[in-house]
Amino acid sequence: MRTVYSPDHARHDPQKEISDGALVDAVEKPARAEIVKARIEEVGLGPLEAPTAHDDTLIARVHGADYLQFLKGFWADWQDAGRAGEAFPFVWPVPGLRRNAPPRHIDGRLGYYSFDAGSPLTEGTWIAARKGADTALSAVDIVSGGERAAFALCRPPGHHAASDFYGGYCFLNNAAIAAEGFLAKGAERVAILDVDYHHGNGTQAIFEDRADVLFVSLHADPADEFPYFLGYADETGIGAGEGCNINMPLAIGTDWLAYSDALAAALVRIKSSRADALVVSLGLDTFAKDPISRFTLESDDFLKMGAALAGAGLPTAFIMEGGYAVAELGINCVNVLTGFEDAAG
Amino acid sequence: MRTVYSPDHARHDPQKEISDGALVDAVEKPARAEIVKARIEEVGLGPLEAPTAHDDTLIARVHGADYLQFLKGFWADWQDAGRAGEAFPFVWPVPGLRRNAPPRHIDGRLGYYSFDAGSPLTEGTWIAARKGADTALSAVDIVSGGERAAFALCRPPGHHAASDFYGGYCFLNNAAIAAEGFLAKGAERVAILDVDYHHGNGTQAIFEDRADVLFVSLHADPADEFPYFLGYADETGIGAGEGCNINMPLAIGTDWLAYSDALAAALVRIKSSRADALVVSLGLDTFAKDPISRFTLESDDFLKMGAALAGAGLPTAFIMEGGYAVAELGINCVNVLTGFEDAAG
Repeated sequence: MRTVYSPDHARHDPQKEISDGALVDAVEKPARAEIVKARIEEVGLGPLEAPTAHDDTLIARVHGADYLQFLKGFWADWQDAGRAGEAFPFVWPVPGLRRNAPPRHIDGRLGYYSFDAGSPLTEGTWIAARKGADTALSAVDIVSGGERAAFALCRPPGHHAASDFYGGYCFLNNAAIAAEGFLAKGAERVAILDVDYHHGNGTQAIFEDRADVLFVSLHADPADEFPYFLGYADETGIGAGEGCNINMPLAIGTDWLAYSDALAAALVRIKSSRADALVVSLGLDTFAKDPISRFTLESDDFLKMGAALAGAGLPTAFIMEGGYAVAELGINCVNVLTGFEDAAG
Repeated sequence: MRTVYSPDHARHDPQKEISDGALVDAVEKPARAEIVKARIEEVGLGPLEAPTAHDDTLIARVHGADYLQFLKGFWADWQDAGRAGEAFPFVWPVPGLRRNAPPRHIDGRLGYYSFDAGSPLTEGTWIAARKGADTALSAVDIVSGGERAAFALCRPPGHHAASDFYGGYCFLNNAAIAAEGFLAKGAERVAILDVDYHHGNGTQAIFEDRADVLFVSLHADPADEFPYFLGYADETGIGAGEGCNINMPLAIGTDWLAYSDALAAALVRIKSSRADALVVSLGLDTFAKDPISRFTLESDDFLKMGAALAGAGLPTAFIMEGGYAVAELGINCVNVLTGFEDAAG
């Protein structure tokens, strides 16, 4: 399997994040992508290729123009405001407040375009995220060119980013952009399967009123886990998208036995959807030793997950999402990909 | 003028707050109330009285039952969850997410019931806030009993707290509770004048659809200052409350000359409202040396502010809100009260 990778992911190199009332070492860090890259080389999964540059057309179908301008111009604005260091918002337009226009003050704009306090915005965030979108679209190009699958080693991750806000370590929604890529290449319908431990609230919000993208997510019950405020089973889509959003919240402690049952049900739904292509939001934080998660999958289970995903029989773009147990992240991620390849034959 | 004061305000004693991506010393601290108390004693403003206990009836007209239960039970829940230390939320239900039921997880509930990252919730927060509500209601009792005015030395402040979320150092909206107190004592219409540097978003949200409470606020333009997402001039009330919400956003750098013009206009509006009583949300952070604010009022200006407020000719409950220049906070606060008394005669 061909992997798309850019060293520019490391331009997003946050040092700290805010967690539980304290500044702690950031868990979403460059080493995550590097250990996956090293494992790909170790097992000889296939070539590593640089992303090709794509213009903003498909990104602009996913994200609002003002949000993109905010991200692109943020670091210059931050410096112009005399600020230094990683940026964190501290106030948000929750219901009962108003979100109708971005405030002038940069702290107000940070809150306007975000939904959490834990995602540092740094000098290199925009270039890394933008290159991540190219990485996702390049994987789609490979698959659209005839390969059964390709892997986009995106970093930072994307599935928590909505059309006009960031959070959960995510800035541009790479999986959503990949889905638009398949549609632009002629797919009539695309399925996104999100196997990250956390619900992909951004992806859901972007597509929930559309029938051309099916979103299926297996994740920790949001009543118990981040992002808390989306990802419940009764969110089945809106308007034309009714029936095209499928959330499968799973209990804390879920093991492979329960997980694989849910995954099989998700794949039945995807196979019946007449999708022309599959985007997998590939988070590895369902792993038992993940430091911020509470499922109990083991490394070998990711081989089985890959084999199950191959069973969908669809051209597949894998998009890297979360997973924070850095030592085993390479093994677990590449296990999904080799499990897929072995089953796809 | 009689002052209502409870030493229990000091049970809310936050050590740190999150500001600009760092844990910094909390600015909303017990010394704020103590220096005001000391100044009251120094100038002989009048007696200091303990609040009398009030049941929850009037508080429940301002805040939702589930929110009150959350605040009251929070510290036990926090301990039951094995947590320790001051609590800070880190993710919020912004538009695009969903706020329909409180999550099970305590971090989710923190975000569900708040709107900022900078307001520590501590072991003593509930008792201090609840005693603050008694303090506000006791001041209303004094005024309803025939005094021209009384001062509720509430702490923590209240005007950012909405019916079901906290933030901006505020947990229970003392000014809103005081307004309900006047209504319960027979007032047909109450005016609230908010002179804190920051917009009283909570007070507005609580009353904006009602005609029996007029809310008038002078504050830094929210495009430039916290709370950023409410307090604009076009927010004039909703439904039955149309015309009963008046925001007067002022530019960064506003001095007494410009401020007093706006204050005079606010008082004209209040006098024409046929209100039976006035609640003043008394923030002193319009002071030039306030560490987190950017107006330029001087200590003597607060005497003039008090005299102007007396010109409304209404029974008046002063409710303490913000003001963080602790050294001068006592002088500035008591200047408003003595300025009022001298003009009221």
